[in-house]
Amino acid sequence: MSRLRIFVATLAFAAAPLAAAAQSAADVVVFNGRIYTADAARPIVQAMAIRGGRVVFTGDVAGARALAGPNTRSIDLAGRTVIPGMTDAHAHVVGLGDKLQAVDLVETKSYDEVIARVVERAKDTPKGQWILGRGWDQNDWGNTNWPTHDALSRAVPDHPVLLTRVDGHAVLANAAAMRAANLTRATQSPAGGEIIKDAQGNPTGVLIDNAENLVARAVPAPSRAQVKEMITDAIAEMHRWGLTGVHDAGASGLTLELYEELGREGNLNIRLYAMISDHQPTIDAWFRRGPLVGGHNGMLWVRSIKLYQDGALGSRGAALLEPYSDAATSGLLVSPAAHIKDVASRALVAGFQVNTHAIGDRGNRLVLDSYEAALKERPTADHRFRVEHAQILHADDIPRFAQLGVIPSMQASHQTSDMYWAGNRLGEGRLRGAYAWRSLLNTNVVIPNGSDFPVEYVNPLISFNASVARQDANGWPAGGWYPEQRMTREEALLSMTLWAAYAGFQEAELGSLTPGKHADFVVLDRDIMRVPTSDILGTQVLSTWVGGRNVYERR
Amino acid sequence: MSRLRIFVATLAFAAAPLAAAAQSAADVVVFNGRIYTADAARPIVQAMAIRGGRVVFTGDVAGARALAGPNTRSIDLAGRTVIPGMTDAHAHVVGLGDKLQAVDLVETKSYDEVIARVVERAKDTPKGQWILGRGWDQNDWGNTNWPTHDALSRAVPDHPVLLTRVDGHAVLANAAAMRAANLTRATQSPAGGEIIKDAQGNPTGVLIDNAENLVARAVPAPSRAQVKEMITDAIAEMHRWGLTGVHDAGASGLTLELYEELGREGNLNIRLYAMISDHQPTIDAWFRRGPLVGGHNGMLWVRSIKLYQDGALGSRGAALLEPYSDAATSGLLVSPAAHIKDVASRALVAGFQVNTHAIGDRGNRLVLDSYEAALKERPTADHRFRVEHAQILHADDIPRFAQLGVIPSMQASHQTSDMYWAGNRLGEGRLRGAYAWRSLLNTNVVIPNGSDFPVEYVNPLISFNASVARQDANGWPAGGWYPEQRMTREEALLSMTLWAAYAGFQEAELGSLTPGKHADFVVLDRDIMRVPTSDILGTQVLSTWVGGRNVYERR
Repeated sequence: MSRLRIFVATLAFAAAPLAAAAQSAADVVVFNGRIYTADAARPIVQAMAIRGGRVVFTGDVAGARALAGPNTRSIDLAGRTVIPGMTDAHAHVVGLGDKLQAVDLVETKSYDEVIARVVERAKDTPKGQWILGRGWDQNDWGNTNWPTHDALSRAVPDHPVLLTRVDGHAVLANAAAMRAANLTRATQSPAGGEIIKDAQGNPTGVLIDNAENLVARAVPAPSRAQVKEMITDAIAEMHRWGLTGVHDAGASGLTLELYEELGREGNLNIRLYAMISDHQPTIDAWFRRGPLVGGHNGMLWVRSIKLYQDGALGSRGAALLEPYSDAATSGLLVSPAAHIKDVASRALVAGFQVNTHAIGDRGNRLVLDSYEAALKERPTADHRFRVEHAQILHADDIPRFAQLGVIPSMQASHQTSDMYWAGNRLGEGRLRGAYAWRSLLNTNVVIPNGSDFPVEYVNPLISFNASVARQDANGWPAGGWYPEQRMTREEALLSMTLWAAYAGFQEAELGSLTPGKHADFVVLDRDIMRVPTSDILGTQVLSTWVGGRNVYERR
Repeated sequence: MSRLRIFVATLAFAAAPLAAAAQSAADVVVFNGRIYTADAARPIVQAMAIRGGRVVFTGDVAGARALAGPNTRSIDLAGRTVIPGMTDAHAHVVGLGDKLQAVDLVETKSYDEVIARVVERAKDTPKGQWILGRGWDQNDWGNTNWPTHDALSRAVPDHPVLLTRVDGHAVLANAAAMRAANLTRATQSPAGGEIIKDAQGNPTGVLIDNAENLVARAVPAPSRAQVKEMITDAIAEMHRWGLTGVHDAGASGLTLELYEELGREGNLNIRLYAMISDHQPTIDAWFRRGPLVGGHNGMLWVRSIKLYQDGALGSRGAALLEPYSDAATSGLLVSPAAHIKDVASRALVAGFQVNTHAIGDRGNRLVLDSYEAALKERPTADHRFRVEHAQILHADDIPRFAQLGVIPSMQASHQTSDMYWAGNRLGEGRLRGAYAWRSLLNTNVVIPNGSDFPVEYVNPLISFNASVARQDANGWPAGGWYPEQRMTREEALLSMTLWAAYAGFQEAELGSLTPGKHADFVVLDRDIMRVPTSDILGTQVLSTWVGGRNVYERR
């Protein structure tokens, strides 16, 4: 695996005049790279200098070196590629932390291995505290029958344990967990779910679909300290993948408090654009307080609300104008349209942005209608209202985004995850308006990109690859799925940098390597702007920098 | 000819809330257009709002209208195209004014018509004051013989008159001019020139090539007031062609004084980036004073020096590494290389930029060598030293621009003017490094574009067209001249906007329609980013705006 040469230069550049160095020496100089700035004034440069957490120079190597002093950290990129720090414009931070804290059972090769991993976790976990895990798949084991809880319960008797199957459609609970949930041989399987029982009629610990919740509901909510740890873990994980910013698509009052607490402590090491969850008291409190813009030293923004219009496509919850192609339903509304309109109206008064989840074509139309009505009552420049996902659009609605000044915030990763079955749900005709990036870009909107982790993987290059190839990791389908909707690489890079910043009102501070802006950047081992698309997903993040600080380095 | 609908809205947008309007109403709102911003955060928008001379919003129409108040000027673009105000990064302002003040004789159809135009001018000119004209061509007259001065001298007896032929290779002087110059029948033709005489041996008034100067030297230098008027005339002419900025490639001490005077008077209505001519006392005075950056309310920059390394290609003055293909010479040096190095070294200390004319491959190499030597002695970030023209480059020198942080400042207009005969001068091999925009862009430099007016026409779209087509106004040659060196339209637009601003250290203030920057823009009757290249040169500037003020409007 390739490494980046990083060294601290004590007197690297003897030629640099001491006077200049003393006055204004850079903290960090990176050079000998191919640095994509996302700034049209200097699109690609060889070197960059950083002072006080901000970019102070982009250009030639000698020019950057001229800013080095005796205490400057000098990074020889050795030809590597640098891009602006990526921002995931739609993701769930605490959800990721929760997932990270679960025992990782992905690719376990036997039930014994699963048990061994849980035993290992139990050593560090106070007795009685729940242990959660996820990722097992009995098809990878020698014996592909459903497991039974006995071996697990013997090995881990003093902690309730709940282990989710890789696809989320089954869990395995141990005896302590079933006791805690009061699940007994007398418990009946619910509609849409099954409690697997043995020949004697005792629960085996395996619960299918709607039966999962019989135990899951007994898992206590995480404590404040646990949530804080989830956030910290999630931030570290994002750094690993080259993210220097994230838009949290729905933060509770507690989460917002913890973001601020981390900010005050100096431990919020990612540009966090938090959307307030649709919880009236929390929203009202923030409307009274007013927007928080670049708080805690440029790390935290709270100036937007996350709403839900409809459900998801996979579960046929996305609201469609015509019924699903594979079921006699048109989806559902999570919120009445009047609610979206009401919150939007109040947000315009309070100076907040509204970002509403809409997946189906009906969901999207309703949100656009609500936004339009609110904006008609109170015309507002630069509201930057967003539709989150904007997955399936009626042709008539595509131009409305630009007309209304509404931003389609899309997750390219969903396209490659959904393409195998989206046609079944929607039929050929509606696919033409699905994940329709090019059609939207042609109306002159910008598209902030994201992953929707932990629903999808954190790695933002999955969305980058989907954006430019519309192919999965195996290069399927050849030529791409509805390839006429692809983005260019330039657009894809902007969608994860400057356009994400724009969607968060941050473009003057973030999103490009422009002198004066925060020095958020990523060093990659491949040039994602030039390698064949089949090589994009193999790209490694070598280091991640937030405000000129190295927050992740690949060893 | 198409017109732009411009009207002042007294109460155009009744829906706009009065409170918002009162707080922060825009001065100007433009809407219903296709506005290319040159800002990747919002590349194309439909509307823009301006307040205090700066862009305050770009986006949707309703958003811009929301910023309108009762006194806002509202401009309905009716689908027209807007681009950022164009900057000519290399031109001669006083030279243009001088040319504009001359009597325009282009396309006169008879000698009588020439005389009539001079008579007309004489009416408004004090007796004894010189009248200069240019543009006559006896081939367009019934009689294609050389004219004689008699008719002119009879019609205009009391003003010395000097009329330059369309190609500059001949002049016609009247009797008063010959008297003033002491040109008599006794005067001998100089080497390389001819005094045309009649059968009686009297001068006819026509002077060829080197004989021109026998009279031209008698023309008095323009007064301070005349120069000031030339500048004002030139600015108005630039506005007509959509220029909102110009880099004056060599301003004398007097010119700089007048720029400042016009600035103090509020009459400098173009972003003027003035390069100080190579005159030691003027340079020294400015080095002592220090750079002027955005002086006189963001209109004047004096922080650079214009030097000359070699001559021009047409006259075989460009310094070549190997002899010309059509003459036994390798060109000439206007300044010794040591002078360039010396001024560059002192400029680095004083914080000034150096912009050196270099056309031949030897001229360019010498300038790069001098810059490199100066920068080695005093490594400097962000010096942005420029080579003006950079017309003919040895392959080895192409990557040196990026390596040294040197900007190639090129005038695409020269390529289409020179292509007919450049091959004769240089031979096929050297043409591969001539006007080599793509080769340079591929090294990741940026190229500010310009015209070099009055050597070429003011119209910046001539360089835009040359940049993207490498064809003349007749579309010759088919497919373009060395078309592999073309720019994309996006690059060509940047070269006349944001990259020109970068070359003048102005990119944070100018060059794109970004909220916070000066509201300098142009309304065009065609979309130069999308029409066939053959339609680019027919594009009309409908209006020109500097700092949100309408400085030119086509009627």
